[in-house]
Amino acid sequence: MEHPENNEIYKGLTVNKGIAQPSTVNPYLSLRKKPRRRQYSVGEYVEGIVKGDITILSQAVTLIESLKPEHQVIAQEVIEKCLPYSGNSVRIGISGVPGAGKSTSIDVFGLHVLERGGKLAVLAIDPSSERSKGSILGDKTRMEKLSVHPDAFIRPSPAAGSLGGVARKTRETIILCEAAGFDKIFVETVGVGQSETAVHSMVDFFLLIQLAGTGDELQGIKRGIMEMADGIIINKADGNNIEKAKLAASHFRNALHLFPASESGWIPEVLTYSGFYNIGVKEIWDMVYRYFDFVKANGYFTHRRNEQAKYWMYETINEHLKDSFYHNPEIEGLLVKEEQQVLGGHTTSFAAAKKLLDTYFHR
Amino acid sequence: MEHPENNEIYKGLTVNKGIAQPSTVNPYLSLRKKPRRRQYSVGEYVEGIVKGDITILSQAVTLIESLKPEHQVIAQEVIEKCLPYSGNSVRIGISGVPGAGKSTSIDVFGLHVLERGGKLAVLAIDPSSERSKGSILGDKTRMEKLSVHPDAFIRPSPAAGSLGGVARKTRETIILCEAAGFDKIFVETVGVGQSETAVHSMVDFFLLIQLAGTGDELQGIKRGIMEMADGIIINKADGNNIEKAKLAASHFRNALHLFPASESGWIPEVLTYSGFYNIGVKEIWDMVYRYFDFVKANGYFTHRRNEQAKYWMYETINEHLKDSFYHNPEIEGLLVKEEQQVLGGHTTSFAAAKKLLDTYFHR
Repeated sequence: MEHPENNEIYKGLTVNKGIAQPSTVNPYLSLRKKPRRRQYSVGEYVEGIVKGDITILSQAVTLIESLKPEHQVIAQEVIEKCLPYSGNSVRIGISGVPGAGKSTSIDVFGLHVLERGGKLAVLAIDPSSERSKGSILGDKTRMEKLSVHPDAFIRPSPAAGSLGGVARKTRETIILCEAAGFDKIFVETVGVGQSETAVHSMVDFFLLIQLAGTGDELQGIKRGIMEMADGIIINKADGNNIEKAKLAASHFRNALHLFPASESGWIPEVLTYSGFYNIGVKEIWDMVYRYFDFVKANGYFTHRRNEQAKYWMYETINEHLKDSFYHNPEIEGLLVKEEQQVLGGHTTSFAAAKKLLDTYFHR
Repeated sequence: MEHPENNEIYKGLTVNKGIAQPSTVNPYLSLRKKPRRRQYSVGEYVEGIVKGDITILSQAVTLIESLKPEHQVIAQEVIEKCLPYSGNSVRIGISGVPGAGKSTSIDVFGLHVLERGGKLAVLAIDPSSERSKGSILGDKTRMEKLSVHPDAFIRPSPAAGSLGGVARKTRETIILCEAAGFDKIFVETVGVGQSETAVHSMVDFFLLIQLAGTGDELQGIKRGIMEMADGIIINKADGNNIEKAKLAASHFRNALHLFPASESGWIPEVLTYSGFYNIGVKEIWDMVYRYFDFVKANGYFTHRRNEQAKYWMYETINEHLKDSFYHNPEIEGLLVKEEQQVLGGHTTSFAAAKKLLDTYFHR
């Protein structure tokens, strides 16, 4: 099968490579007019996506990521119309500190799950990323094999912005990918705390990659992340490192033992593997699929997806309410002043809050 | 020294036990007029509190807890005027699952710290409490010795309400207690997750009481709580239970080892003790005081108190913004409808949120 991105252009779909310039126009003007992609209609986007057209999917994701209000209007309509085709996937969050070997692992994991059939989309959340500085997944060549696989769609993290904004875009991208027939979604994130929580709230299974190493190295895990994991996998369990990896795994098993059972009833498993040498990968995915059998049988899978949908509705509302308050010009000035009053011990936190709220609500 | 509550009434302070009824009034009418406590002026409250008058302190706390707006106005003024006298204390959060022996422990801990000098206030946060049903600390006799100690002030959790409301009242009560010369504040809470977070955000040291027991029993800890602890103490380390307690302690030490160092630079300690037999209590408080020496020396003590003051200002604002939205009559109806649309897959979380926000802001 040929890579979809390579042949889309010849399919007779409404892709336009730019408007040809008549030779009579000022050549300097024409230099400033770059060839523009044709804007599809909402119907064309949806039709293309549902057909599995990667070029159109890519362009729709670009709309989602766009800051222009007119793009957002189209994007929301497209998402709305794709919704009925979405949801039929397994969504897996993959996290790990820098250096844990995430890219290599995702490369071999991706190939492995694709051998089992279906199509895979690899997305990412990295609020700190800037495209130009090489965000996570920004450089597709980091996933050598997956990036040229015909059934894989790799999309870097949306450009820098608030975590809420970045997460929202990734979540909307999941909907489009599912509508385009991607039945496996990986969402990669770096191990920096807040973004894990965002990923956790949009995936079905949360996989934490750890490094075999000494106790000191294990401390790279941020607070609360271990408790989100449905599976912890210790990478680089090869050569001289095998015993260390096994020891680390047993430490993690002991630690997990101290946490209460998760709501799903699933007991997180700890496995060792080597992404580089492709050892133990099958066992990891046997575990992941065992999880899906388990939560689909006990109803937790659907329950959790519903909870996540509600969570995002409330989260979006709450974030917007805060934005509206803290970006209010009258509040911005007063806030600095009141904060100083609180820090100086001249007023209580509550009296300061009341004053600010009274101002905001014009009471 | 006599218990302050017993002699306050004879001090010539402006306590009024009720307005005498002239004998000519209708006896049935007079039956309906219960003797009323005299309302102090703000100045009288502040003067009484700063003098260490327990009766006035108690009544001021009652004002803080009152739902009447006119009481709140006075309470806020009193707190504001007490602020300059507050802050000079160590604030210690004490948590543990039901059955861990919190009351017995707080009783012996309280006596122990009072032997070292000063005055102790014991407060509580229990959002689920109802006075009549015996909230935590509701029954003072659960702390046999402390409840009759002249230098101890015990106050149950404010009555049931939102966690935010209950926590706010406790935090304000801390200010008054400190102004009244209480230089040690215990804040008790039950091990139910959310309330620990609230307590953690108002204390300097967070002590987690655990039970010696099997692995299964250890799972009583809620997610995230262990990571808040500055000290974990295993109760009932006596008789046959000593070895089990030591084993539990070593499990906890291993688990803590997996967490990153806390911002304070303090490494949480794990100790065993017996509240009932008063074994190992001194060692616990040596640890707690070691902590205070450490964080006062490295500046974290002040830094954290400032962060907490800011936290409560922002928390109060954010809670109020949400209340205002979710209690808006127009929103309440629409919210149910939109939530159903989201759960049914007919609209996205984001589109539903936008519709609700547009309604609220009349856009």
